[in-house]
Amino acid sequence: MNETETVDLLISPRWVIPVEPAGVTLTDHSVAVRGGRIVAVCPTEVAERRFSAHERVALPEHVLIPGLVNLHTHAAMTLFRGIADDLPLMRWLQEAIWPAEAKHVAASFVRDGTLLAAVEMLRGGITCANEMYFFPSAAAEAFAEIGMRAMIGMTTIDFPTNYAADADDYLRKGLEARDRWIGNPLLKFAFAPHAPYTVSDATLERIVQLAHELAAPVHMHIHETSEEINNSVATYGCRPLARLEKLGLLDTDLIAVHAVHLDIHEIDTLAAHNCSVAHCPTSNMKLASGIAPVKRMADRGLRVGLGTDGAASNNRLDLFQEMRHAALLAKVGSGDASAFDAHAALRAATLSGAEALRMDQEIGSITAGKAADLVAVSLAPTECSPCFDPASHLVYVAGREYVSHVWINGQARMWENAVLWDDNKELLPRVRVWQTFLKESALSR
Amino acid sequence: MNETETVDLLISPRWVIPVEPAGVTLTDHSVAVRGGRIVAVCPTEVAERRFSAHERVALPEHVLIPGLVNLHTHAAMTLFRGIADDLPLMRWLQEAIWPAEAKHVAASFVRDGTLLAAVEMLRGGITCANEMYFFPSAAAEAFAEIGMRAMIGMTTIDFPTNYAADADDYLRKGLEARDRWIGNPLLKFAFAPHAPYTVSDATLERIVQLAHELAAPVHMHIHETSEEINNSVATYGCRPLARLEKLGLLDTDLIAVHAVHLDIHEIDTLAAHNCSVAHCPTSNMKLASGIAPVKRMADRGLRVGLGTDGAASNNRLDLFQEMRHAALLAKVGSGDASAFDAHAALRAATLSGAEALRMDQEIGSITAGKAADLVAVSLAPTECSPCFDPASHLVYVAGREYVSHVWINGQARMWENAVLWDDNKELLPRVRVWQTFLKESALSR
Repeated sequence: MNETETVDLLISPRWVIPVEPAGVTLTDHSVAVRGGRIVAVCPTEVAERRFSAHERVALPEHVLIPGLVNLHTHAAMTLFRGIADDLPLMRWLQEAIWPAEAKHVAASFVRDGTLLAAVEMLRGGITCANEMYFFPSAAAEAFAEIGMRAMIGMTTIDFPTNYAADADDYLRKGLEARDRWIGNPLLKFAFAPHAPYTVSDATLERIVQLAHELAAPVHMHIHETSEEINNSVATYGCRPLARLEKLGLLDTDLIAVHAVHLDIHEIDTLAAHNCSVAHCPTSNMKLASGIAPVKRMADRGLRVGLGTDGAASNNRLDLFQEMRHAALLAKVGSGDASAFDAHAALRAATLSGAEALRMDQEIGSITAGKAADLVAVSLAPTECSPCFDPASHLVYVAGREYVSHVWINGQARMWENAVLWDDNKELLPRVRVWQTFLKESALSR
Repeated sequence: MNETETVDLLISPRWVIPVEPAGVTLTDHSVAVRGGRIVAVCPTEVAERRFSAHERVALPEHVLIPGLVNLHTHAAMTLFRGIADDLPLMRWLQEAIWPAEAKHVAASFVRDGTLLAAVEMLRGGITCANEMYFFPSAAAEAFAEIGMRAMIGMTTIDFPTNYAADADDYLRKGLEARDRWIGNPLLKFAFAPHAPYTVSDATLERIVQLAHELAAPVHMHIHETSEEINNSVATYGCRPLARLEKLGLLDTDLIAVHAVHLDIHEIDTLAAHNCSVAHCPTSNMKLASGIAPVKRMADRGLRVGLGTDGAASNNRLDLFQEMRHAALLAKVGSGDASAFDAHAALRAATLSGAEALRMDQEIGSITAGKAADLVAVSLAPTECSPCFDPASHLVYVAGREYVSHVWINGQARMWENAVLWDDNKELLPRVRVWQTFLKESALSR
């Protein structure tokens, strides 16, 4: 007689898209979880014989996917959502964002803004964020409170802000934050030099050295606009990427954010150095930065993950939207309607992001042994009917509002469309207070 | 002593964006409705003194906008939603859509598919659709049953289908449908020759004559792909638009659908003839057709409305998505982040569509005297917080899921997120039956 194996949780959705193996949609399969880890993905009838579960969750109209990985965001900027839209980039920065930041950004601002962002991300099935902003310890505190996984950027920029006085001060404060949170199982830290045009060679060299010593990833905006490239050629005599290569920054498995303007050699260079691109299609459209050549990147073996960017330039922290925009923009940008198909978009939003963060041993696919970061999406609404292919529906039909359940490390963080966080109701009144302060900084139009 | 004026309905939202006058967001205003028409838009404190209302609707966290006008769709194709995605246009048509249509399209298919589409559109705040498909009388029946406003296309194509044998047969059946529904206050009929490459000169000449006789608009796909333009040059010695101009079709106030590939002279020609463009940004991206030059169109005075296209090439009938995509694509396409701002996107989705349909005396803005086609959108969710500018939030933040109430001609069609249609529950089981039939025609991948 067979004995059953005890597990904590057995989830039985209508479909599972595990991302690994690629391109597969499983029907009538279940996912067993014990101690926060995935034990097995197998046919439901097998699971029912094999496992005895403390908790069973039947999701008869849902598709289960790995938690989404937001490979680039500035969470606290959610407090700036829509403060100045439809403006050219430099007016947007100089007249709206920078003055507002100078006036208001502080640890309490970053904590509240990051809480707001984390709730929004969770509700949209994002379980891990790659974060870049000031006051990283305050951001870490917010992610820890919500129980969301994050890579916190130790932001560095070569001019003073409310947060730090100079490059040394940024790095020191970033490393202090890292030391403070090093025991938290959901938090990791990356170096996050802002961009080639705001960080000096000396600072970048120091970051390269520290990144190797501490085995930490590097997360940086590059080649977002053609203007930035022209300026680099004028100042340094080469394009930004060539400068970064010379400085050794590409040997840190750089996460290159935006990377809109890349020629074919630069794509090959990034791929050869095992770098990743954090593609932010909505932000690139909204700020008129350009169309990143993601089909070419994929064809040349360069890894592409997806990021929302901050809510000041998007204005949603919504990877369902980014999957759709990545697929649509790749098609119209390359003239090939088969480019970046639904499974490619889902991989970019999950496993590719995990690989870029060097977390693919832990997350990014529904695979035995990995952490149980799982998201259930209901395809029951009228708007999803009929359904011939759940993967296509995830990218081209579903919205984040169809996310019903979210687990991180096997812990439920969202249940039947409600975030499981006690202080959820305290947050919006605080956001309204920030809104009142910020309104004075908003452009009068 | 002042006497109050009796009205049927007084709606008091937090904000009203009336579209006329342009660029305005009213705070603490109310809209009074009597006999299906808007009586006044005025400050709530004035409305409370002036009107005595049978029904009062307080919407303290909502923005009220005119009903959205979907300027191009093939409603019944909603039954093909996602049947064959990520394919190049010709494979998509030849291997998936046309065989499925040949096998299944009939009056009952069109009626059920249009019901499904109408429910989806209503739920997303669309109160008027410009429809083009086979069996127009069956489509009219569906819109009439739901109580949605529509312009029904009398589709014409120069080859036989399940619906009609030849151009004469299409036109005869279209005109019969028009005669049958002529008394319905919500339905109007347009001529809908499919495209320059599927309709002959002789048929187009007949349509021009009929359009003038019956004062009906003409609705036609043009310049969707560069291939279609090259073929026309090879066959007719000129680009499609030049051919249509020669045939007199532009003098019918043509609604030119897609119009992706237009040079500056063609933009001026369409503007000079008072034609309109039905811009379908999602469909143009997904099928890799190209980026329509909508900033140039707007700069040259050419009217641009928005369409979802059919759910086979989109896969949502969602004008919130189209507003966002129109704004984002115009920016990245023109390199100007200020192009097609939030108010421009909302105008395109409302008043411009109404003008294109020659219905702007009736609908398209919240103006005294017009029909009360109204949509309330809640900006209460966490994802909308903070809110500095409701117009920007409508385009860049809100999703159709925030639509809470819809009125058409002053009649509630959606109330607190639920469609008011008795047979709503009967529809999805019928859709599942069609899905089973269609699955056999789906590409096995």
